[in-house]
Amino acid sequence: MKADYISVIENSLYDFLPDTDCREKALIESMKYSLKAGGKRVRPSLVIEFAKLCGADAQKALPFACAVEMIHTYSLIHDDLPCMDDDDLRRGKPSNHKVFGEDIALLAGDALLTLAFEVMSSDKTAALIGDKACRKGVNTLAKYAGAVGMVGGQVIDLISENKSAPIEVLREMDYKKTACLIKAACELGCICANADDSYISAASKYGECIGIAFQIVDDILDVTSTDEELGKPVGSDEQNSKSTYVSLLGVEKCRELANELTEQAVKALDVFGGGTSELEQFAAKLACRTK
Amino acid sequence: MKADYISVIENSLYDFLPDTDCREKALIESMKYSLKAGGKRVRPSLVIEFAKLCGADAQKALPFACAVEMIHTYSLIHDDLPCMDDDDLRRGKPSNHKVFGEDIALLAGDALLTLAFEVMSSDKTAALIGDKACRKGVNTLAKYAGAVGMVGGQVIDLISENKSAPIEVLREMDYKKTACLIKAACELGCICANADDSYISAASKYGECIGIAFQIVDDILDVTSTDEELGKPVGSDEQNSKSTYVSLLGVEKCRELANELTEQAVKALDVFGGGTSELEQFAAKLACRTK
Repeated sequence: MKADYISVIENSLYDFLPDTDCREKALIESMKYSLKAGGKRVRPSLVIEFAKLCGADAQKALPFACAVEMIHTYSLIHDDLPCMDDDDLRRGKPSNHKVFGEDIALLAGDALLTLAFEVMSSDKTAALIGDKACRKGVNTLAKYAGAVGMVGGQVIDLISENKSAPIEVLREMDYKKTACLIKAACELGCICANADDSYISAASKYGECIGIAFQIVDDILDVTSTDEELGKPVGSDEQNSKSTYVSLLGVEKCRELANELTEQAVKALDVFGGGTSELEQFAAKLACRTK
Repeated sequence: MKADYISVIENSLYDFLPDTDCREKALIESMKYSLKAGGKRVRPSLVIEFAKLCGADAQKALPFACAVEMIHTYSLIHDDLPCMDDDDLRRGKPSNHKVFGEDIALLAGDALLTLAFEVMSSDKTAALIGDKACRKGVNTLAKYAGAVGMVGGQVIDLISENKSAPIEVLREMDYKKTACLIKAACELGCICANADDSYISAASKYGECIGIAFQIVDDILDVTSTDEELGKPVGSDEQNSKSTYVSLLGVEKCRELANELTEQAVKALDVFGGGTSELEQFAAKLACRTK
C-alpha cells in the first residue's frame, strides 16, 4: 500500500489523542507510546484504499482508519501483559507495561478501545460521512473486535495452548484472532464511503482471505526463516505440541493454500470493475513476504 | 428507582450476550458471571427513567441501559485484577479472575466494553431510535467512559494513592471515576428519546450532582459505619494518608455538601415541568443512605 498513507495516518492518530496537559498525563503518554510503535499500518491503509475505491477521499476515511489501528494497538498492549503472553518486548522496544507499569498499561488499552468508538461517532465524523455510516461503522468494528471476533480468537488461543488442536480449531482461531480485524478494516473503508452492500461483501471476502493467508504465511516463516545470529531455524527451540498450519499440513500444502486464498481475495475485487491494482499487489506481496 | 426495572434490565443484559454454544464458552460465562453479580442497577435504571421522562418507553431505552451496565461491569472486573486493586471478592462473591483466571477476566472486561458499543449501534437499536440517536449515544458513553472520563479518574486515583491530595484533585478524581458514568446514564436516557439539548443538559447536571454526592456519602459511611462483627469503624485499620472528602473537610461539612448537591440535582429537573418525583426521591435516598 502507498507509503504516503503512513504519515497521514500517524499524524491523525496523534491528533485524536487527548491533550497531555492533564492529571492523567501518564495514561495519554502510555497510549501514545504504543500508537507510535506501530508497524506497517496495514489495517488503516486498507480502510483508506477501500474508501478511495468506493469514491471517498482519505480525509473521510481517517476516523475509521485510526479507530481500527487503536483497536489493534490496545489488543497488543493487553496481549503483552504478564497475565497473557508476558512479553517484555514488542517490535524490539520495551512493551507498554515495562515502561508504564501494568496498571497504566491495562488502562491505556481500555482507553484506546474506548477512544476508537468515540472517534468513529464524533460530530466531526458524522459531518463527513453521515450518522448512518458512523453507526454502521461502530457496529461492524465492535462485532469483529469483540467476544465472537478478535477477543474470542484470543480465548481460543489461550485454551488450546500446549495442546494439539485439529485444523478446524486452528482455522477458527486464526480467522477470529487475525482475519476479523483485517476484514473489519476492508468493510469500514466501504462503509465510510456509504457504498452498496455488494461492495461491502466483496471487501469483506478480500479481507477474510488475506487475513487467513497472512497467518498461514506467518506459520511458514516460523519454520523456514533462519535466525541469522544462531544459524538455525527461528522457533526451533521453542517447539511444543501446539498445532500450526505447517505442523498439520506441511510447508508445501500451506504454500498452496496461501496462494489459493490470495487468488480468491483478488477475485473478490472483480465487482469493483477496475482501480484495484494496489489491493491486488498488496495481497500478492503478503503471500510472498519473507519476514 | 422502581424495582420492576431490575428484572427487565437483567433479562435484557443476558439476551445481549453471545450464545455460550461456542469454543470461547469460558469467555461468555465469565462475562455473564460479572453481569449477574450486579447490584442495584442504578445506572441502567437512570437511563430508563430519563427516557420515560422524555417520552420514550423502556424498550427503546434498554440497549443504552444495558450498555452502561456493561461498561460499569467491565470497569469492576479490570479494577479487581491483581495489577490494579487486587481484590479477591466483589459484592461478597469471588471476583472474576479468582473464578476464571486473570487472562479470561482481562478479556471478559475487553469483550464487555466492546459489546456495549455493539449493542448501542445495532440495526435493531437503530430501528427503535434512529441512526443519529445511536451515533450520539455511542459518542456520549465513549467520552465519559474513556481517557478523560472514567478511565482517567482511575489513573488519577492510582497516582494519588498513599499521598495526601488537595481537594481539587479529589474533586476531579471523583467526578471522573464515579460521576462521569452516572452523568452518561442520565444523558443517554434523553438521547435515546431524541430529546432536545436543554433536556440533555438538565439530565447531565442531575447526574453530575448525584454522582459526586454519592462519592461524598461513601466517604462519610467509610468513617461512620460500624463493622458489626468487630464493633469498630470500618476502615479504621486501613488508615493511610490518602485524602477523602471527610479527611479534608470533616463529616459535618461533607453532609452539608452532599445535601447541597442533592438540592442542585433536584433543581436541575425543573426544566422537565413535572413527572420527576421518582428521580427526586432517588437523589434524596442516595444522600441519606446508610450503607
